[in-house]
Amino acid sequence: MTLLSEIKEQPERIKHLLVSQRRPIEQVASAIQKHNVHYVFLAARGTSDNAGRYANYLLGAVNGLPLALAAPSLFTYYNRPPRLKNALVIGVSQSGASPDIVAVLEEGKRQGCLTLSITNESNSPLAQVSDFVLDIQAGKEKAVAATKTYTTELMTIAMLSAALSGDKKRWDELKHVAGWMKSVLKHHDFISQAVQRYRYIDQAVVLGRGYNYATAFEWALKLKELSYIIAEPYSSADFAHGPIAMVESGYPVFAVAPKGKVFHSMLEMLKRLKKEISAELVVISNEKRALSLAQIPLSLPAGAPEWLSPLVAILPAQLFAYHLTLAKGFDTEKPRTIHKVTRTK
Amino acid sequence: MTLLSEIKEQPERIKHLLVSQRRPIEQVASAIQKHNVHYVFLAARGTSDNAGRYANYLLGAVNGLPLALAAPSLFTYYNRPPRLKNALVIGVSQSGASPDIVAVLEEGKRQGCLTLSITNESNSPLAQVSDFVLDIQAGKEKAVAATKTYTTELMTIAMLSAALSGDKKRWDELKHVAGWMKSVLKHHDFISQAVQRYRYIDQAVVLGRGYNYATAFEWALKLKELSYIIAEPYSSADFAHGPIAMVESGYPVFAVAPKGKVFHSMLEMLKRLKKEISAELVVISNEKRALSLAQIPLSLPAGAPEWLSPLVAILPAQLFAYHLTLAKGFDTEKPRTIHKVTRTK
Repeated sequence: MTLLSEIKEQPERIKHLLVSQRRPIEQVASAIQKHNVHYVFLAARGTSDNAGRYANYLLGAVNGLPLALAAPSLFTYYNRPPRLKNALVIGVSQSGASPDIVAVLEEGKRQGCLTLSITNESNSPLAQVSDFVLDIQAGKEKAVAATKTYTTELMTIAMLSAALSGDKKRWDELKHVAGWMKSVLKHHDFISQAVQRYRYIDQAVVLGRGYNYATAFEWALKLKELSYIIAEPYSSADFAHGPIAMVESGYPVFAVAPKGKVFHSMLEMLKRLKKEISAELVVISNEKRALSLAQIPLSLPAGAPEWLSPLVAILPAQLFAYHLTLAKGFDTEKPRTIHKVTRTK
Repeated sequence: MTLLSEIKEQPERIKHLLVSQRRPIEQVASAIQKHNVHYVFLAARGTSDNAGRYANYLLGAVNGLPLALAAPSLFTYYNRPPRLKNALVIGVSQSGASPDIVAVLEEGKRQGCLTLSITNESNSPLAQVSDFVLDIQAGKEKAVAATKTYTTELMTIAMLSAALSGDKKRWDELKHVAGWMKSVLKHHDFISQAVQRYRYIDQAVVLGRGYNYATAFEWALKLKELSYIIAEPYSSADFAHGPIAMVESGYPVFAVAPKGKVFHSMLEMLKRLKKEISAELVVISNEKRALSLAQIPLSLPAGAPEWLSPLVAILPAQLFAYHLTLAKGFDTEKPRTIHKVTRTK
């Protein structure tokens, strides 16, 4: 079971990354600070795009950097790519091999922007066109569904944010991530039992907001790739602007709602779903008020601060998708139709 | 049937807008050109967010402007909003009443950015905090599901792009939009029959790329709001990076694939879905090669250029969602759970 062993490997990888990559990340942060960077232009696909969603909130809220998620086809199909004046251009890709992501970085370089790649393959085409390369050091990822490369991408982004902030307290908090991850992996047996209830679902909605908007997207992606259920991710705000109309009594809603600035907003939505609509709730949280609304509560460690919660909250979600896949009788190692490296243009 | 009459009203609204708003739009374009604008920071929710997706491609490909879709919670929930140096801050909202969108514009103004609102309510809170207001002049939209405010938002963005480009040919092309819209409304009876085949679907995938990434999102949103089917939108590239694993024989895939730069990429995906997976295809296109793969082909006028195709392609999609809602026995005028104006923070 490669996928399960890769899920379990994550605390060690994160612990190692914190030690081995602190210096190179501080050097990149220092280069960024010397440049006249007005905003970040980030290109990624799939799981790495979800890491980009985390960067959008973290670099925005902590480092004051606006972030644009690139539309790669503007660089590969249309006549003229946009003018990237004063942008820091970042490519995030496990394989570093997708031609459209490489094209965005190449164009950034051509226009004189500072370019950075975050990848598991430091000799990849993506790495070769970047001024700076941050190696996520996840080790070879054999399972088709990405898990440890997602959390090591998040950790790299979190460390970059800490380095840019110059705030020592953030480095201290980063030291606890591996321990928090270990503690949630202990829910393994509970989750393997709990998913049985969802053996026959074929659709679900996944909610998250702020930093954990990324977690909602990544949980939904694992459910789609592995369990073949159509799981659609939303922020609780976007959900209220229309899609909530789909939900009826018993409809499965999975939510990521840890303590933090957006907790109250998520709690209001969960109460509405529970009380007005009688939706079925699976909730990942470290707040009793949210967990107590859930048919299946998945608890997080109390101490994890909001900015690091996505690194911890995705682990029960990965285990949930893994065990649901087994419960449904599908192959966790070789999902149909998709391949490990997807070369889109 | 307010919704149907609002769908049918669109060609007239677009025709009127082109005449009445050309001058104010040219004035806004001139103000943008005088400012040192490096990129666009756009805030919107729901249907208006889909208009923002159109702006992302159009302003990028035609006007060389990178665009960041704002994460409004960074402005309403987290400590510090990002620094918006040299950004043009745009808010798009039918009602102009959602506090989170207003908060983004207020912050943009506080930081000295040029601010622009695109709205149907020129006295709304959003309009009041903006340097410039473009009135989409859709007339009162009574149906809960937005249709004519979507296409008038797209038209306003298309006119702004034409004004910024200084290319007269684009203004000539804009004159044809209302006629193309009228011609696709003639498919009304065909669509009302064709949707019967989908009376019992409860999920679907909607694909589009480039300019029509927006159309895929908006088609999916109408299906969710009105027909309560879980319809998930993707670019054909993101779809290949994982979610395609969900699709099995007979699975409904709705696609928007008109002529243009990304047509070949869409066609390859449609062929793969048809030949390898035997998916069920509904295709909106003006290319026989795409239409011939579909169980239900919905044809577009041959002459519509790619940059304006989203204004035309959404009409058969709106009619499709409308008639599917009737076929399923739901209320097209009052979808459950949602309201016309959603005030999220």
